[in-house]
Amino acid sequence: MKIRINEVGPRDGLQSQGKTLSVESRLSLIQALVKAGLKSVEAGSFVSPKAVPQMAGTDDLFALLPERNAVRYAGLVPNMKGYELAVAAGANVVNVVLSVTETMNQKNICMSLPQTVEVCTAIIERGRREGVEVQAYLAVAFECPFEGLVEPAVVARFAKLVKQAGASRVIIADTIGAANPEHVRRLLDAVISEVGSDILSCHFHDTRGMALANITAAVDRGVREFDSSIGGLGGCPFSPGATGNVATEDVVLLLNSMGYGTGINPLDLIPVVSLAEQLTGVSLGGKSFRWLSQQSSKASAAGTPHGG
Amino acid sequence: MKIRINEVGPRDGLQSQGKTLSVESRLSLIQALVKAGLKSVEAGSFVSPKAVPQMAGTDDLFALLPERNAVRYAGLVPNMKGYELAVAAGANVVNVVLSVTETMNQKNICMSLPQTVEVCTAIIERGRREGVEVQAYLAVAFECPFEGLVEPAVVARFAKLVKQAGASRVIIADTIGAANPEHVRRLLDAVISEVGSDILSCHFHDTRGMALANITAAVDRGVREFDSSIGGLGGCPFSPGATGNVATEDVVLLLNSMGYGTGINPLDLIPVVSLAEQLTGVSLGGKSFRWLSQQSSKASAAGTPHGG
Repeated sequence: MKIRINEVGPRDGLQSQGKTLSVESRLSLIQALVKAGLKSVEAGSFVSPKAVPQMAGTDDLFALLPERNAVRYAGLVPNMKGYELAVAAGANVVNVVLSVTETMNQKNICMSLPQTVEVCTAIIERGRREGVEVQAYLAVAFECPFEGLVEPAVVARFAKLVKQAGASRVIIADTIGAANPEHVRRLLDAVISEVGSDILSCHFHDTRGMALANITAAVDRGVREFDSSIGGLGGCPFSPGATGNVATEDVVLLLNSMGYGTGINPLDLIPVVSLAEQLTGVSLGGKSFRWLSQQSSKASAAGTPHGG
Repeated sequence: MKIRINEVGPRDGLQSQGKTLSVESRLSLIQALVKAGLKSVEAGSFVSPKAVPQMAGTDDLFALLPERNAVRYAGLVPNMKGYELAVAAGANVVNVVLSVTETMNQKNICMSLPQTVEVCTAIIERGRREGVEVQAYLAVAFECPFEGLVEPAVVARFAKLVKQAGASRVIIADTIGAANPEHVRRLLDAVISEVGSDILSCHFHDTRGMALANITAAVDRGVREFDSSIGGLGGCPFSPGATGNVATEDVVLLLNSMGYGTGINPLDLIPVVSLAEQLTGVSLGGKSFRWLSQQSSKASAAGTPHGG
């Protein structure tokens, strides 16, 4: 059975870095990810370069993306102008973010929750009319850094709302890495009863070390798509305590080991982690990185090619 | 519902360190663990100090252990002489190790598998006659570094054998950190059908980052005791590729978050990780360590006591 890995390093990962990378550097990271077998990549966001300088030139970046027919490239947008820029740049998929608590919206984007709902649904509905795939992230779905634990019923209600508006996928995001496997089950049971599991993806952070346990719990509930970030690159700059997207190499190794097909050889991700480290200047690598690196060295020493 | 954490840092952890600690240093680590709430500790092994200098003086150590009535202290023994030393030293529990493959026994302890079975069952049976609790570790239960994947039925057969001999507990050990949640389920289903779940513990390594996912899978199957090592201290010096016991702070945080009672506040483990780092001179800390350290600092700044 197949599971899709959606790589978010080039957007979610790079956006929170102190160092701003050039379009060429960001492109080189995406090229390496695609070469390693990633078929779904969040490539950038269409936001004001004043607000998020790390994402400046995303339209130029989209014009240069490799294997446009084989890879699904998403762009994050904060508003209708962003949607228009993303579509003009040729994004296959447009991502919108709906934080499910009032305070998170106010602190994160200076909008009320009803305002965010309005903006998101307008973009989703326009995408449906124009034949553009729009995905909805439900952020802080487990716990909000300002309001605490979130009721699963609240998330289920928003999932239903964005699905009805026409969202192609609903992504349950553990923005601050607060989920545990029991909470994942409770939340997914509530959400699946409203929208089913086929439309769902999950986005976990490994802040408390539980991301792979949470992914396993979600796989058990039928979820077949997960976000991850190469080497664990990134976090959320606006959420206190949010560090560390779950690392792509960890997720691929877990799912492959469990017998699911990701289409990716985790050993092929090792040079991409190194490239990301080189570009950002930060030390990266998931929990399995050291072990994978050892396996990769052994394979190289034995002259065994491993794809890519 | 309660889950018991069995701390193995002072034995399994320290045994693989390059630096040999004095009895006083090992005692200080155990004192800190007990102060943090650990009620079950593998304190040392009764082996030749020539073979394993890190464990020299374990009999002296046992004479000094704190809270002997409230804490369950185990000693690992390789043979009948070790059993006698452990009992003389006042160990509450004696641990024996049965690697379930022929090659692992040969490489690890220079005995054949049938010889190891004979030694282990003789110790277990003697413990039963003398009223001494003997636990049996089934090592390389998932995968052997020499023979590859191990059939669940093989492990189930050994579990039945040691239970019938009188072992108080059977510990399924993923000695090289090769398990994944699917494999855990398959193996536990086979073992539980032979011996039930009440007698089982699990010992996972976090080499490939999957230990917490594996523990979650084992909890789902009814296992209510897990080994872990403070800060992830240790590994197995004789097994190629074995690095990193799962960290006690990670396991406690996971299980507490899921609503199980471990009787331990993970924040109380932070100073113990620091002590273990100081004593061994190696950098330690599980996947949750950074986050827990932040929480600990916040709690201190707010003047909030957190036990211990």
